Amino acid sequence: MNIALLGFGVVGSHFYTLAKEHGGVKVTTVLSRRPRPELDCTVTADFDEIVRDGSIDLVVEVMGGVEPAFSYLSAAMRAGKHVVTANKQLMCAHYEELLSLAKSNNVSLRCTAAAGGGIPWLTSLARAAENDRITAVEGILNGTTNYMLSAMTNKGSDYTAILKEAQALGYAEADPTADVEGYDARRKLVLSANLAFGVSIREDDVPCVGISHITPPDIEKAKELGLTFKLIARAEQSGNKVAAFVCPTLFPVTAPEAHTDGTGNLVSLYAKRIGKQSFSGAGAGGFPTGSNVLADCLEIRRGGCGVYYTDRSKPCPVDNSAAEGRWFFRHNGEYLFFGDYTVAQAFEVYEKYRQDDPTALMARVAAPRKK
Amino acid sequence: MNIALLGFGVVGSHFYTLAKEHGGVKVTTVLSRRPRPELDCTVTADFDEIVRDGSIDLVVEVMGGVEPAFSYLSAAMRAGKHVVTANKQLMCAHYEELLSLAKSNNVSLRCTAAAGGGIPWLTSLARAAENDRITAVEGILNGTTNYMLSAMTNKGSDYTAILKEAQALGYAEADPTADVEGYDARRKLVLSANLAFGVSIREDDVPCVGISHITPPDIEKAKELGLTFKLIARAEQSGNKVAAFVCPTLFPVTAPEAHTDGTGNLVSLYAKRIGKQSFSGAGAGGFPTGSNVLADCLEIRRGGCGVYYTDRSKPCPVDNSAAEGRWFFRHNGEYLFFGDYTVAQAFEVYEKYRQDDPTALMARVAAPRKK
Repeated sequence: MNIALLGFGVVGSHFYTLAKEHGGVKVTTVLSRRPRPELDCTVTADFDEIVRDGSIDLVVEVMGGVEPAFSYLSAAMRAGKHVVTANKQLMCAHYEELLSLAKSNNVSLRCTAAAGGGIPWLTSLARAAENDRITAVEGILNGTTNYMLSAMTNKGSDYTAILKEAQALGYAEADPTADVEGYDARRKLVLSANLAFGVSIREDDVPCVGISHITPPDIEKAKELGLTFKLIARAEQSGNKVAAFVCPTLFPVTAPEAHTDGTGNLVSLYAKRIGKQSFSGAGAGGFPTGSNVLADCLEIRRGGCGVYYTDRSKPCPVDNSAAEGRWFFRHNGEYLFFGDYTVAQAFEVYEKYRQDDPTALMARVAAPRKK
Repeated sequence: MNIALLGFGVVGSHFYTLAKEHGGVKVTTVLSRRPRPELDCTVTADFDEIVRDGSIDLVVEVMGGVEPAFSYLSAAMRAGKHVVTANKQLMCAHYEELLSLAKSNNVSLRCTAAAGGGIPWLTSLARAAENDRITAVEGILNGTTNYMLSAMTNKGSDYTAILKEAQALGYAEADPTADVEGYDARRKLVLSANLAFGVSIREDDVPCVGISHITPPDIEKAKELGLTFKLIARAEQSGNKVAAFVCPTLFPVTAPEAHTDGTGNLVSLYAKRIGKQSFSGAGAGGFPTGSNVLADCLEIRRGGCGVYYTDRSKPCPVDNSAAEGRWFFRHNGEYLFFGDYTVAQAFEVYEKYRQDDPTALMARVAAPRKK
């Protein structure tokens, strides 16, 4: 099976190494703006060459961003080529179009590495969704913020200092917005919810609070209560309603989430028949992510595992009005608990609090209710 | 896709319900010694009828035991039928023969439900093993003993009392030997190791210590040290050597294993490129296990995911002489720690201890070494 690789950054270069080592698939072409004489395959800056090349069976896209990735993958599928991508931004932005293109051109479209890095999360979720009713998906899906929260909790670091450290270590981008404000986790949640519930929800419909307002006194307060902050993305389905949101969440120190430290990810599904299943591992990194990309390619090579993103993708509004929770707020220096707000109400209250206190904090409480 | 179901016990009847609900596959025949007028499909006591029935594409075997299951599945594969089984005893006893039959008859053979109940463990392990080098697999793979150890740890129950309770709840069999002596976990380990390392190891070659010698004072001693007992099955590969063993293992109370309570399973793989990945969920139960059986059937129906047990199954001795560990023993009432025994040496020492103290205890210590 011959592969064209679009993008030669961290994930791309690691995937290239892994594919070469494995030998079961062959990267014959790399799309790159600059020459790469170190590679012993065709290097081109012209995507049309790849589309016209009938010897290429599969296009791997790890360039990121919506365009030109969307145009490239659309053209590839129209030319009958399978597609594997790690690009969550693209998958969220053009979910229905991409699925429908895969279906109408009878090619496979897989993106396991787009959520959970190296963890076989989306494949396991697809397996469960095929024969059970998933009621919720929830987890730590962003390694950068988990690294930061772990350091704030375990070493008492403050937000600004640990962000700088994470940037120096390459865990956080120069512009950390997508990570720290929860947008990266939200995209992974959208893909997870779409696959779990057979819907297509929109990123912008999912309310999202990140970790940038969490202070050392907040961490101390949580500790006093036996709780630990984690940034959690959660979606649940009840009747025909799909609820979805991202926000800091307080777990009892005995919960598996509380023990997921550093850049690790931990994500769970809840289903009617199989109950709760959890998956943990490296949520980012060149080799883990590249490995999940390669696994998708190998499954396509074996054939038949098909479009695991099937045609089950009805557009669906996000409705947080029925999802329940317990909540923790900090507003003008005071800590407040509420046990009787829906998710929609909690985000409304938080918006109100932020009007006179822009540093106000909101968190869900995932601890079991005291008897 | 038409299915013949062999066995209508807990897993069989739950699988039947799930398949009916799903509709994507159809159980057309059930093999049963007694009439089952409640079923609206063919019920027969004659397996030859099933073999001769050209309309049956796949045989699901959940009857347990080695014979007649082995003869039945061999005949089914020779007749060109795919096979899904939850029977770990059979898979361990005739691993190479079954794989070779699947290969030579070009049919699929899957047994995801044989290890980890409802958890997609073997499928995820197969995915990882295909493109990475697995260095170790390890986990809590027996729900009965985990239920018992949890109660002994959290409620101070003693072994005999909690065994009776587990039997009353249906978690333990009338003859609990296979669970409490670790044989059930060992079979799941054999399947995991075979798939992880592309080998075929023999059950009898894997040294195995269960939980029947753990006393309340042992639990107390562990607590004093900040440790928790779990029954762990572990296999590792180093060079060409495969080590494998089952024994009680002490984890720090902060480890995810220590928080896996009740009948839950938690199993991890360690690989060169993707690092550590862990999977947890219901390790037993009619619906979770039946659900994993159905998922295997659906994957075969889609085609192409093929024999995930491939032809990589070289017979391989178990060699514990190079695997390292730290160890905790109780011998004649005294607790002893050793940090410099290999796995082979530790089991030898334990055998010696048992000669003059039949109630002696052995456990591995999985806590990080103190600096």
